[in-house]
Amino acid sequence: MCRWIAYSGTPVLLSRVLFEPRHNLIDQSLHSRMGVETTNGDGFGIGWYAQELTTPAVLRDVGPAWNNRNLQEVAHHVRSGQFFAHIRATTGTAVQQTNCHPFRRDRWLWMHNGMINEFHQLRRDLALAVDPALYPEMEGSTDSELMFYLSLTFGLTEDPPGAVARMVGLVEETARRHGVPHPVQMTVALADGDRLWAFRYSSEGSSRSLFYSTRVDSLRALHPDAEFLQEVGEETRLVVSEPLGDLPGAWNEVPESSYGLVQPGQDMLHPFQPQLPHP
Amino acid sequence: MCRWIAYSGTPVLLSRVLFEPRHNLIDQSLHSRMGVETTNGDGFGIGWYAQELTTPAVLRDVGPAWNNRNLQEVAHHVRSGQFFAHIRATTGTAVQQTNCHPFRRDRWLWMHNGMINEFHQLRRDLALAVDPALYPEMEGSTDSELMFYLSLTFGLTEDPPGAVARMVGLVEETARRHGVPHPVQMTVALADGDRLWAFRYSSEGSSRSLFYSTRVDSLRALHPDAEFLQEVGEETRLVVSEPLGDLPGAWNEVPESSYGLVQPGQDMLHPFQPQLPHP
Amino acid sequence: MCRWIAYSGTPVLLSRVLFEPRHNLIDQSLHSRMGVETTNGDGFGIGWYAQELTTPAVLRDVGPAWNNRNLQEVAHHVRSGQFFAHIRATTGTAVQQTNCHPFRRDRWLWMHNGMINEFHQLRRDLALAVDPALYPEMEGSTDSELMFYLSLTFGLTEDPPGAVARMVGLVEETARRHGVPHPVQMTVALADGDRLWAFRYSSEGSSRSLFYSTRVDSLRALHPDAEFLQEVGEETRLVVSEPLGDLPGAWNEVPESSYGLVQPGQDMLHPFQPQLPHP
Amino acid sequence: MCRWIAYSGTPVLLSRVLFEPRHNLIDQSLHSRMGVETTNGDGFGIGWYAQELTTPAVLRDVGPAWNNRNLQEVAHHVRSGQFFAHIRATTGTAVQQTNCHPFRRDRWLWMHNGMINEFHQLRRDLALAVDPALYPEMEGSTDSELMFYLSLTFGLTEDPPGAVARMVGLVEETARRHGVPHPVQMTVALADGDRLWAFRYSSEGSSRSLFYSTRVDSLRALHPDAEFLQEVGEETRLVVSEPLGDLPGAWNEVPESSYGLVQPGQDMLHPFQPQLPHP
Repeated sequence: MCRWIAYSGTPVLLSRVLFEPRHNLIDQSLHSRMGVETTNGDGFGIGWYAQELTTPAVLRDVGPAWNNRNLQEVAHHVRSGQFFAHIRATTGTAVQQTNCHPFRRDRWLWMHNGMINEFHQLRRDLALAVDPALYPEMEGSTDSELMFYLSLTFGLTEDPPGAVARMVGLVEETARRHGVPHPVQMTVALADGDRLWAFRYSSEGSSRSLFYSTRVDSLRALHPDAEFLQEVGEETRLVVSEPLGDLPGAWNEVPESSYGLVQPGQDMLHPFQPQLPHP
Repeated sequence: MCRWIAYSGTPVLLSRVLFEPRHNLIDQSLHSRMGVETTNGDGFGIGWYAQELTTPAVLRDVGPAWNNRNLQEVAHHVRSGQFFAHIRATTGTAVQQTNCHPFRRDRWLWMHNGMINEFHQLRRDLALAVDPALYPEMEGSTDSELMFYLSLTFGLTEDPPGAVARMVGLVEETARRHGVPHPVQMTVALADGDRLWAFRYSSEGSSRSLFYSTRVDSLRALHPDAEFLQEVGEETRLVVSEPLGDLPGAWNEVPESSYGLVQPGQDMLHPFQPQLPHP
Repeated sequence: MCRWIAYSGTPVLLSRVLFEPRHNLIDQSLHSRMGVETTNGDGFGIGWYAQELTTPAVLRDVGPAWNNRNLQEVAHHVRSGQFFAHIRATTGTAVQQTNCHPFRRDRWLWMHNGMINEFHQLRRDLALAVDPALYPEMEGSTDSELMFYLSLTFGLTEDPPGAVARMVGLVEETARRHGVPHPVQMTVALADGDRLWAFRYSSEGSSRSLFYSTRVDSLRALHPDAEFLQEVGEETRLVVSEPLGDLPGAWNEVPESSYGLVQPGQDMLHPFQPQLPHP
Repeated sequence: MCRWIAYSGTPVLLSRVLFEPRHNLIDQSLHSRMGVETTNGDGFGIGWYAQELTTPAVLRDVGPAWNNRNLQEVAHHVRSGQFFAHIRATTGTAVQQTNCHPFRRDRWLWMHNGMINEFHQLRRDLALAVDPALYPEMEGSTDSELMFYLSLTFGLTEDPPGAVARMVGLVEETARRHGVPHPVQMTVALADGDRLWAFRYSSEGSSRSLFYSTRVDSLRALHPDAEFLQEVGEETRLVVSEPLGDLPGAWNEVPESSYGLVQPGQDMLHPFQPQLPHP
């Protein structure tokens, strides 16, 4: 469906993460190894937090990432300590900028890989559950954006994991009423400039791949010659749909039905369970 | 806001109508004389009925019409007896293909110039009024597309003028509840391959410009040397946001709060009045 | 590098050839079986001859063919008796409309799969060999367009096979002077609305794949139930980079270093040999 | 034809200069007051120098600047102490990224407003004068890019004003041979990250408009309340096709046939005179 990369840590040029690794964003857009589709060429987006600015920047376009010069330019000239990148393979919705990830509201970024099963059938009921004050801000037609706005409706800015759990609960409940099986398939990244959450879940218990990088200090011990590891601090962490390279010991699978939190200090890994939103 | 041209009559190359007249589509996109905005550069679209095919073709793109080569190519190589052209000046919604006119469903084409006032506020309530079976087919974020789907909900394919009247009635009623003044501003073209309807209406009684061409036989008497008039049959008629040229006697204003019907045989002009949709 | 399809015969909707076969243009753009690259997503183009018009139409765009709606629209609504389709995988030059195939001059269409080796080194010398009267009309930066203009310079409109032979001769001679090995790798399609030429050649004698379809009458005898074969006349012929399906007996390889001519009456297959252009 | 803005001075968010002034880039793209065309909607570009990186970044796209979200995003999130912005109105060449300004080579940025008269006729001769080692790097089809490469050929990186003078001399000499009158019409901005040159010249002595901003210390005395003037240092200078606002005393016309140099320390204004390049 899609592939994504989330970075949090020492400010670096985006290109260090997006283009320099062997199995990088471009390689994944042409030859995904673990995705449902091998080609992710239906648009892309990056979002990054710039120092001292409260809202992140978002650059999105409808062509493939692999031949986009503006993406190369920005990635080779902008540094950031927290950024997202996403390459899209549409499951049917239009190829347009407003359907490209990441989605932003205020200081929040959201990106998604997966799908709501039979979204066509469920779309109206789910849209009605969005806070009427937020409804008019939805610009695209994807399940991914709607999942973001449902999560915002259910308290994302106060309690991100709880809001996502309630969003998933609502989608599953709505699907049940419509007789739609296996409604949710998702890996989601969420950030606010300081913290980064990553969720892996699917109703059927067989979720899209998701990996997080090993602690930098442990990796340095294993690979004392890896240049990139010398440049970044110990707080640096990546969460990715697919490993960016073959460095032994560098990548760990996020378990089924769980979510991680990357933050200053101790990172966390917790189980994830859908909840029914309060009636 | 936007400008549009609707043609019905003898099959001609689209370019004869879209590019050859003096004040043509390109001129209007750069230098509209009667529009609210002089520049209409936020996307364009054409729709045409091809012989023996039940659904019309639609070509839409997000750049300006004036520099689009594909538009030139198609217009200079495709003939049609009924076609639409539209140039867009966005009132805020995204510049994307799914927001470009004309909109199509089955054999129906719809295009619009104008706006729903404070659409942001009304969008959700209006979207909820769309037939749930039609709701998932809306792909864009414009008031124009939503007006089309509301009209479809209210019986467009059976009774076009009645359905449009009910759509306007609903928008005005919804606006009243939200305290939004002057809710509807519109000229709309609608076609099914045989017939062409054109509506001019605004809640405030001060609608965007709309003109229809004089009967071909009368025009020929006035301008026996006009080459184009010799080529097309008597059933040929144009409805346009702005006159395409300065031929004396060629253009007649569609009166406020009225609609016209162009069809095989006698064309019609009727008053238009909003109705409340059946509860 | 690229993939292409050329059709000549009974006028049909373009979609019958481009989208309906099993291994169609979209499938080839995502999963080419015989190409050097499996993904051909760096732009596409179609060119078609419309009845009674002297110059063919060309529709080209920079995104992938697989998600382009305008391509679908035109292909499903336009009929033609001679048309080209091309999907591009760039070998380095910019992804822009003027680098998309087919290229057109007057009534001629040209498309190419392959490359001039080390084109960067040879480009200037080759450009200087283009007729100064034609030079300013080159708009893009590809080897393919330059090969077309060189062929035009060497008499394409009078003697297509001879002009292409002289073009290849010049490229090979220029490469020899620069010490560039294996300079030409090409399959080329050329048409003028009546006739269609297809060339297969490479300096190293190991050319990109190219196939032509079996005579319709023979195929009908083999496959009496194939619907498409009942609809088209005996003059119908396809030349393609890759077979469009698995119909046994339908596809024949164009031999190395040869060219075919599809025309009213007897088609031809001849050897192809580069020539030095007259000094 | 086009409009441009060049900034040099205290690092600021690009949006401070490009979007906040009253007669800003967007306003100029829709309603140029001094340009030959009022609409500049055929693509745009920005180039900026990022701290500690040797080559500037370039973001270019083919749509109008006024509705481009990526331009807004980058301008509102990137700071730079030297940057260019350009909006294009094509004089005939294709609307494509490689024809958008600014053009870059290594650490140099170049942008142009104006035209070479009858460029179609002169293009080949001028292209042949480009250093063969540079020739293959030209990607677009504009006179503007060719003027940059001619200047590079004539020593731009060593002696910018001399190289530009020789470029203009060559164009005028070439035009003379072809019988083309008034060959050069130009305002050009050139930068290397430290210095900024701006040229105003036309063969007929009637050049496109060009202005430079008054010294910051003088302006502060005149307008002690102007917020922007408090934020930037005394080395800050703008050179623009049209004044960005109506601040009295802020803008000074660059004289006909002259060029300015903005640099650390004393800025300069000199006469500009074409030279014949050494044979």
